[in-house]
Amino acid sequence: MLLSLSTWCDIEAYLEKSRSLIVPIGSMEQHGPNGLIGTDALCPTVIAEAAAKDDPEILIGPTFSVGCAQHHMAFPGSMTLRPSTMIAAIRDWCDSLRRHGFEQIYWLNGHGGNIATIAAAFAEIYAERSLSDPSSAPAALSLRQRNWWELPGVMATCQRLHPFHDGSHATASEVAVTYAAYPDQVRDVVLDPKVAPEGGFTDAEHYRKQFPDGRIGSDPGQATVAAGEEIIAAAAKALREDYGNFIDKN
Amino acid sequence: MLLSLSTWCDIEAYLEKSRSLIVPIGSMEQHGPNGLIGTDALCPTVIAEAAAKDDPEILIGPTFSVGCAQHHMAFPGSMTLRPSTMIAAIRDWCDSLRRHGFEQIYWLNGHGGNIATIAAAFAEIYAERSLSDPSSAPAALSLRQRNWWELPGVMATCQRLHPFHDGSHATASEVAVTYAAYPDQVRDVVLDPKVAPEGGFTDAEHYRKQFPDGRIGSDPGQATVAAGEEIIAAAAKALREDYGNFIDKN
Amino acid sequence: MLLSLSTWCDIEAYLEKSRSLIVPIGSMEQHGPNGLIGTDALCPTVIAEAAAKDDPEILIGPTFSVGCAQHHMAFPGSMTLRPSTMIAAIRDWCDSLRRHGFEQIYWLNGHGGNIATIAAAFAEIYAERSLSDPSSAPAALSLRQRNWWELPGVMATCQRLHPFHDGSHATASEVAVTYAAYPDQVRDVVLDPKVAPEGGFTDAEHYRKQFPDGRIGSDPGQATVAAGEEIIAAAAKALREDYGNFIDKN
Amino acid sequence: MLLSLSTWCDIEAYLEKSRSLIVPIGSMEQHGPNGLIGTDALCPTVIAEAAAKDDPEILIGPTFSVGCAQHHMAFPGSMTLRPSTMIAAIRDWCDSLRRHGFEQIYWLNGHGGNIATIAAAFAEIYAERSLSDPSSAPAALSLRQRNWWELPGVMATCQRLHPFHDGSHATASEVAVTYAAYPDQVRDVVLDPKVAPEGGFTDAEHYRKQFPDGRIGSDPGQATVAAGEEIIAAAAKALREDYGNFIDKN
Amino acid sequence: MLLSLSTWCDIEAYLEKSRSLIVPIGSMEQHGPNGLIGTDALCPTVIAEAAAKDDPEILIGPTFSVGCAQHHMAFPGSMTLRPSTMIAAIRDWCDSLRRHGFEQIYWLNGHGGNIATIAAAFAEIYAERSLSDPSSAPAALSLRQRNWWELPGVMATCQRLHPFHDGSHATASEVAVTYAAYPDQVRDVVLDPKVAPEGGFTDAEHYRKQFPDGRIGSDPGQATVAAGEEIIAAAAKALREDYGNFIDKN
Amino acid sequence: MLLSLSTWCDIEAYLEKSRSLIVPIGSMEQHGPNGLIGTDALCPTVIAEAAAKDDPEILIGPTFSVGCAQHHMAFPGSMTLRPSTMIAAIRDWCDSLRRHGFEQIYWLNGHGGNIATIAAAFAEIYAERSLSDPSSAPAALSLRQRNWWELPGVMATCQRLHPFHDGSHATASEVAVTYAAYPDQVRDVVLDPKVAPEGGFTDAEHYRKQFPDGRIGSDPGQATVAAGEEIIAAAAKALREDYGNFIDKN
Repeated sequence: MLLSLSTWCDIEAYLEKSRSLIVPIGSMEQHGPNGLIGTDALCPTVIAEAAAKDDPEILIGPTFSVGCAQHHMAFPGSMTLRPSTMIAAIRDWCDSLRRHGFEQIYWLNGHGGNIATIAAAFAEIYAERSLSDPSSAPAALSLRQRNWWELPGVMATCQRLHPFHDGSHATASEVAVTYAAYPDQVRDVVLDPKVAPEGGFTDAEHYRKQFPDGRIGSDPGQATVAAGEEIIAAAAKALREDYGNFIDKN
Repeated sequence: MLLSLSTWCDIEAYLEKSRSLIVPIGSMEQHGPNGLIGTDALCPTVIAEAAAKDDPEILIGPTFSVGCAQHHMAFPGSMTLRPSTMIAAIRDWCDSLRRHGFEQIYWLNGHGGNIATIAAAFAEIYAERSLSDPSSAPAALSLRQRNWWELPGVMATCQRLHPFHDGSHATASEVAVTYAAYPDQVRDVVLDPKVAPEGGFTDAEHYRKQFPDGRIGSDPGQATVAAGEEIIAAAAKALREDYGNFIDKN
Repeated sequence: MLLSLSTWCDIEAYLEKSRSLIVPIGSMEQHGPNGLIGTDALCPTVIAEAAAKDDPEILIGPTFSVGCAQHHMAFPGSMTLRPSTMIAAIRDWCDSLRRHGFEQIYWLNGHGGNIATIAAAFAEIYAERSLSDPSSAPAALSLRQRNWWELPGVMATCQRLHPFHDGSHATASEVAVTYAAYPDQVRDVVLDPKVAPEGGFTDAEHYRKQFPDGRIGSDPGQATVAAGEEIIAAAAKALREDYGNFIDKN
Repeated sequence: MLLSLSTWCDIEAYLEKSRSLIVPIGSMEQHGPNGLIGTDALCPTVIAEAAAKDDPEILIGPTFSVGCAQHHMAFPGSMTLRPSTMIAAIRDWCDSLRRHGFEQIYWLNGHGGNIATIAAAFAEIYAERSLSDPSSAPAALSLRQRNWWELPGVMATCQRLHPFHDGSHATASEVAVTYAAYPDQVRDVVLDPKVAPEGGFTDAEHYRKQFPDGRIGSDPGQATVAAGEEIIAAAAKALREDYGNFIDKN
Repeated sequence: MLLSLSTWCDIEAYLEKSRSLIVPIGSMEQHGPNGLIGTDALCPTVIAEAAAKDDPEILIGPTFSVGCAQHHMAFPGSMTLRPSTMIAAIRDWCDSLRRHGFEQIYWLNGHGGNIATIAAAFAEIYAERSLSDPSSAPAALSLRQRNWWELPGVMATCQRLHPFHDGSHATASEVAVTYAAYPDQVRDVVLDPKVAPEGGFTDAEHYRKQFPDGRIGSDPGQATVAAGEEIIAAAAKALREDYGNFIDKN
Repeated sequence: MLLSLSTWCDIEAYLEKSRSLIVPIGSMEQHGPNGLIGTDALCPTVIAEAAAKDDPEILIGPTFSVGCAQHHMAFPGSMTLRPSTMIAAIRDWCDSLRRHGFEQIYWLNGHGGNIATIAAAFAEIYAERSLSDPSSAPAALSLRQRNWWELPGVMATCQRLHPFHDGSHATASEVAVTYAAYPDQVRDVVLDPKVAPEGGFTDAEHYRKQFPDGRIGSDPGQATVAAGEEIIAAAAKALREDYGNFIDKN
């Protein structure tokens, strides 16, 4: 069940039985010569929708599609929020959902560069309550973020499919997920070098100097639609369980 | 051509021939008992993608999907940014695109409640340059917003299809556009009253008191897939022309 | 009755019978070679004070005198707030008035460039309440903005007095209003061209390139003290009615 | 010469011979049972205009009329900015003036509660330059604030006119200045007690508890139009000298 | 009793008998050729700890060590907060302490450049309460700032010890206090000129031009460990009394 | 070499040979019944000072002592910054140091709750440069954060000393470090239960419900001065190496 494709009456009914939802969160940033700029937003969206397809009791919110990607800004098409802006926006999304009675929000993340700022945003939201007099504090929220590739069992699937050079940015696995979702976007590009270098980085200029075509440690030439379908299936299944545990605990 | 489904190399090539793009911007908010919460984000996205389908030289950015909808917050599922947050986010999107050399950004808007804040964001962005010493000012940007229903000829199409009670929120026309895009989401709901009341509003509580089921002045029971397809076609054609004029003028 | 010329005891007594007031809001910005920089602040102030003169039951707040005028910054003497600053300031003014029990605030605006940011500020203020738990939300406020030239009947008066080339910036009508209020400031300047060009604009540099002496579409050489007096009288009368309707509706 | 009553051409000419101006800054806040809410904005405005009347080479900017008055908020009609808002607004005013080439801004202050925030705003503005690489820093500004009652010789005049109980809020002297400027606003009110209590305060509730009618240490029943005229004359003369010294030093 | 060296159980017990504490606040900024960069943070810390040593009923919070020092930024090692940042940080510290039931916070200040911003921060904190509906306002706080050199009797001690050229920045007295606290940091530097010049300043560049080695009006070559010990003793004693009066009054 | 105990001339000389420094960063928050509130600020300070003691070429900045600890706010004495405030403050610290020519800043962190916000602050600082036109961007900075317990070899030392129940908050190891630094603060408290429970948490109220005395998974009754000394020695040695590698890489 997708929030964007529901009526308010649907959500009113949903809130009778559940106080939780999943919100995909990603980024618009370069993913090397054969990866899509939307990769990190597409992956959690595709996986969340796959998980919800099998279960009408899971609500998926709109995708938070532009995240923290300052380090990719030397590659055309990349977009970023400043972390302070992203904290304000996540807070507004959470305040909105709390207003309707949602109590647990599970953010399914698709971008490593978002992790810190999402966590900072959670602390900003919790702080409002933690610093208030209990009598006038806003209602409690329980927030969780999970990277889709860290869902139980998913990394094992990725490693089985791409035992070598899956990499850490523009990975074969994430590119495969997008190819499975958009088969007409499969790119046949010669990657040079075949396997990208590894290392650390600071700002956009430094990143591009280290990683001239944008990839880190990966050979996404391995990505196939079939592999992507397998990963989506594994991740959707794991998400249903992990989200179920999150709700039960609260 | 969609930014999210492009590689950075695609965008690098695009920038050789164009310095402009279209960014759909909408809202997540109630649209009455038979309209989808995502309506205002879906409409400009669907229209922009239809316009770009016929023309590989038009680039469509990601959809800015949650806007200013504080007045809808008494209806479950509605989401809003505070205007100050929205200004910061639009500024970050524009700063990102300017970094790559984009010079014109055309925002195709789907929500009346966004208009003021988008304009304020443009002024905030322009002010940075207008208040700077010319020698160290950031590069010039030309920003335009256009409501899809105000594209030349579109309103005439809507009025021809729904001569009575198209309304001003949860209109028959916008609901029709979403039905055309998502035919499996057509809702068969009895609207009571058939035509919603009209009037003004302030905050969420006041809005719901005035408009108990969320609609303003509309009878969206008239919405059909066929009408939606006609509107999309008219709007896509008009968008191509209007966007072309915008680029040419700059 | 002017807030600035009242004692707190006067306002305490006023609040026994009314919970409303009018706040003039304008701008400090160039108005061409014969128009005053303060024009947009002076016009609503003069009109509001004229309206209140005939009615001791209308309270006029202080004039919010510097607004959003980034596009005029290439002309010496123009001043602007960033929209984010203006939103914060309008919020503080409204919070202050609400603290005393005011429930309706009618902003009489003198500057087209303010409209969007004023509306965004209203949404920011309403959002605080719309996102709050109803039990701890701040008291409801009803906010209205009205451009003085759009008060019922005023535009007709202006067009009768200046049937040709009243224009859209540094209009003959607004210059006339200031001349009526400050007859010693009537300027005898040769305007070249007599009628200024029309068009759109983005930032300050672009504006000045389009409109070299600052005017848009106007011939303010037509402005006279007599015409200004007529406009003030018409606007003051219309304001009394429009404000009365605003209060009654709430 | 008043900025609000000048054209941009006037200011362009002015900047040929001077890079300085005076900006009155005040507050809208209770001034006891016989003092006007606008007192602190009116006093510096009246004094600055008196000083400029005798000297066409002094430019007076618009009055910054609502300041920091949180402690007066328990008295109807008082208005306040949050200090963070006031800092942003003063920064925008200074950025605007610097854009045109102004190099010295002399703020003539009418409210003790503004002093700290004005100084903090100056530091915020200076910090932008002090933290920048010298090669890309904004142009230097020289900022000064002066309380009108601390202009050389003014306090002596006030003490001569009101040797006893001039007080520290709603003083006889400041009330006299406003009476001189607005003789029809002279109030004949019995003050009880004749002389208000003295002491410190924190927030609005605490202030009102300490000072039930709003005055601190004063007997403004002494205020007369004649005394006000004398103070205005003394202050205008002192301002011309003090401002002259400020300019010369820079 | 130091907060940083207490357990939460210690503070829980302390709050049974007191609702007050002292927080030292200073700066990291150049103090001339023989003064330490930490001088303004060290002085109030040393004095507060000396005062608390004799009285287990005085609680000392952590030192707020980086303040407003934009004007010192042309000297290596100086650090500054922007005033807007400092206001936010002081607000968070106060919100934190209020959450536990603290009602009075006495800030012992070591830096003249902090005074305005600390006062602005107090107004920002008070404003939250002054602008709220009394029924939902946060608990009252009473805030005080005191410069250590203005504690009763301290200036007299300083003047007795350094009757000539104590100065106003990098004073002999403050350098002496740090030498007493860190005798191994006594510097034997030839100061040239022996007595530094006096005057005003704006930003960092201007400051360094006026005061080439950083000192203002002082000859800190006079500073000795013995003098520092005497000042610390006098200030600690005065602090105990002044803080006692502050608590008693509330 | 400590920044706070240096003169500006010392730092000027230091910058001739190095462009790097270490800044300890911690928190003020409960550490269970026998741990000090300052633990997380004291540990990195003590370790950094120990590392610098043996090497005059290492500069240690002031300790950033109050961090992100919203989850501890239900325990008296805990203090927190909101993450948005902390980002602004870290940015100001970095801007200050960059102004003097520092190019690498190594933040030695003592608190797990700070990690996300420090990383978000780094991204905020990098974004300013990544979003700028390269020609006017600020100078590049290289930022690193390291938790002291994750310095190479330190965890092994901690586990050897406390093989069981070192825990994850108020650990035996961190308490031992503070006992070594402040032997007079060793507390003899009966912990009940001996080993604290484990688990997750959201806001302050939730944290205290899960962990009634504040500890998570630890038995800090094991902490001794001797163990603390051993940990400090191991961490200081590791810091020297890790910091050296950081500088060399840049």
